[in-house]
Amino acid sequence: MAVGEASFPHMPAIDGVRLGAAMAGIKKPNRRDLVVIEIPEGASVAATFTRNAFCAAPVHVAKAHLTQTPPRYLLINTGNANAGTGSRGIADAERCCSALASLAGVDPQQVLPFSTGVIGETLPVEKIAAGLPQALTQLDGAQWAEAAEGILTTDTRVKGATAQVELSGGTVTLNGISKGSGMIKPNMATMLGFVACDAEIPAATLSQWLRDSVAVSFNAITVDSDTSTNDACTLIATGRGPQVVSAEDERRFRAALTQVLTELAQAIIRDAEGATKFVTLEVEEAASVEEAREVAFTVAHSPLVKTALYASDANWGRILAAVGRAPVEALDVERIVIDLGDVRLVEHGGRAESYTEAAGSRVMAQAEITIRIRLGRGEARATVWTSDLSHDYVSINADYRS
Amino acid sequence: MAVGEASFPHMPAIDGVRLGAAMAGIKKPNRRDLVVIEIPEGASVAATFTRNAFCAAPVHVAKAHLTQTPPRYLLINTGNANAGTGSRGIADAERCCSALASLAGVDPQQVLPFSTGVIGETLPVEKIAAGLPQALTQLDGAQWAEAAEGILTTDTRVKGATAQVELSGGTVTLNGISKGSGMIKPNMATMLGFVACDAEIPAATLSQWLRDSVAVSFNAITVDSDTSTNDACTLIATGRGPQVVSAEDERRFRAALTQVLTELAQAIIRDAEGATKFVTLEVEEAASVEEAREVAFTVAHSPLVKTALYASDANWGRILAAVGRAPVEALDVERIVIDLGDVRLVEHGGRAESYTEAAGSRVMAQAEITIRIRLGRGEARATVWTSDLSHDYVSINADYRS
Repeated sequence: MAVGEASFPHMPAIDGVRLGAAMAGIKKPNRRDLVVIEIPEGASVAATFTRNAFCAAPVHVAKAHLTQTPPRYLLINTGNANAGTGSRGIADAERCCSALASLAGVDPQQVLPFSTGVIGETLPVEKIAAGLPQALTQLDGAQWAEAAEGILTTDTRVKGATAQVELSGGTVTLNGISKGSGMIKPNMATMLGFVACDAEIPAATLSQWLRDSVAVSFNAITVDSDTSTNDACTLIATGRGPQVVSAEDERRFRAALTQVLTELAQAIIRDAEGATKFVTLEVEEAASVEEAREVAFTVAHSPLVKTALYASDANWGRILAAVGRAPVEALDVERIVIDLGDVRLVEHGGRAESYTEAAGSRVMAQAEITIRIRLGRGEARATVWTSDLSHDYVSINADYRS
Repeated sequence: MAVGEASFPHMPAIDGVRLGAAMAGIKKPNRRDLVVIEIPEGASVAATFTRNAFCAAPVHVAKAHLTQTPPRYLLINTGNANAGTGSRGIADAERCCSALASLAGVDPQQVLPFSTGVIGETLPVEKIAAGLPQALTQLDGAQWAEAAEGILTTDTRVKGATAQVELSGGTVTLNGISKGSGMIKPNMATMLGFVACDAEIPAATLSQWLRDSVAVSFNAITVDSDTSTNDACTLIATGRGPQVVSAEDERRFRAALTQVLTELAQAIIRDAEGATKFVTLEVEEAASVEEAREVAFTVAHSPLVKTALYASDANWGRILAAVGRAPVEALDVERIVIDLGDVRLVEHGGRAESYTEAAGSRVMAQAEITIRIRLGRGEARATVWTSDLSHDYVSINADYRS
């Protein structure tokens, strides 16, 4: 199941960026499970990674390689996360990088590895190495959809977003793909996201802009509160297009970047495991952004709120109870206002006088629902997107390995 | 569904404590939904309450009454939580206290009200008042099982625990009952717990001992991470039995109190909504108790761990990922050891060499499972009990109001 439309956008080629996917039979036969992304020489590359302490071997290796030399290739496999695999996992990730490096004629440190799939199983390095020639043969600037398909696991949809933005020096194109459906509560990044553009931006600046945009996009979604061991988001700026020269250029570029990342993040929620609802939580009038996020995530993680959303039951008491248990000091319930879509649910510490069950049910029946919570404590705000908790979520996750 | 044995223990009468239940038709006809507990004059009473900011009207009233005068009656209704009901809810709770007080010949402040059930609906004060004479007629020291039944909501079992402890001045009896099945992540107390004993203990001391015991019993369980608006645990010491005179007396009494509260808390987990597994999380070698609890609750709340438990799938990678995302600074995964029952799952940052899928599956197939996590950071430890996440949990909570 998934919520909303599912079309994959047309993505213009970005000069110098080529993508290729292969069927390497890593976990299942006859599906794209191996992707190579080629980055032109001179590009800037930034990345954010999971904060899970048990971060996967490829995360360790990608972080290390990124500090050594500008990357020329991204190597992504699905079907195996190479996480919880100890020192063996690190060696396996390095071997994959070396295999690609020798085929492509670059240094192993110029390859960043990414893996996603089941945790704790040994990476099938031979299958990956055997699939690389096919992926390299496919390399083409028009293979975004194939690459988007090749990074999926339990996802039911390919996920892509694109934008063009006019800077003073010309048009910049941004293309991005992402994957993710469960174990989604990114912390610095989503499961996997890859974005490229043709702007010319120094790596340090690119890294800061990526972090800022990730904070309000990938780091503002949750399916099930579980942060993956393999989360990573990578941003390439080829430098073959315009520079960002003015404050207005910067504003425009960063807005476009945030837009692309937000579309990719929202696509993950729309395709969340078992999802029947796409839910936007807007928390306003908080004392700090951190506080606003705490309240939003507490509601977004509440199994009772999520099952009520699944049932299309306007059980506003569960929303109220979740807000009330959020880790916020001295919350004054008298000042809290909660709206469900255009319907006032809660004010003055209890149910709004104007509220009717019929009005609440009308909103809850919709596939896309906004819950707006005003705390009456300040000016800060945060938005978080989440899904509901359905029978399909339990089925998918009770059966995943079997 | 529920896990393990379900017998209600024989509870010796506690002199001066009488209980009575009535069918007041608060939400459904023909079920006990109203309970009165009579407390003898001169007794000490202590209570802990939810920390949910949206705490229910009866919690406000009970807290206020408790500061004014020693209580003589506890008045408990199910079918309606009187939460999210604003100032009207406060007035309604007070009216119920007044109704009982005038029938029993005490002051309204000598009645503590407790409510549990659906949030946000107006309390049916007339039904409660009309049921009180029946409850008072039933008052008897042997009505613990009937009272335990009368406080249930979505529970499938009555929950009771009893203990006797020899002090230097004679035998002390402790009896307790509890309710709770969903919206269970108590914070200072469970949904509802009522415990009485015949020891003579000053109220301030009783309050401290209750808090300490609640911390390792009711505050160490979670079904779904949702803290109720109505949690409360009340402890009565009639003073008609022995005093606690020595350090050894104190040690014995507090151990018995913790035992009774732990049995009542565990009974809630065994009867958790949709539960098929009773899971003990033991976190050891933490830098602090708080840190140990954080790790235990992170694992206990993980939907992916909970669905793997439901599936009896030894998907240890999900346990590892949950430990890795716990809010603990500078966790060194190399030092972490995770055992599932008697099977070593994780060591040296990955799967234990000795681990086999067959061994993991053997433990996962059991109804009662212990997950032991050693962090290698210190001497502190904590134990938390939880349940799995099943299709029945979703069904129960997607259908609760319909």
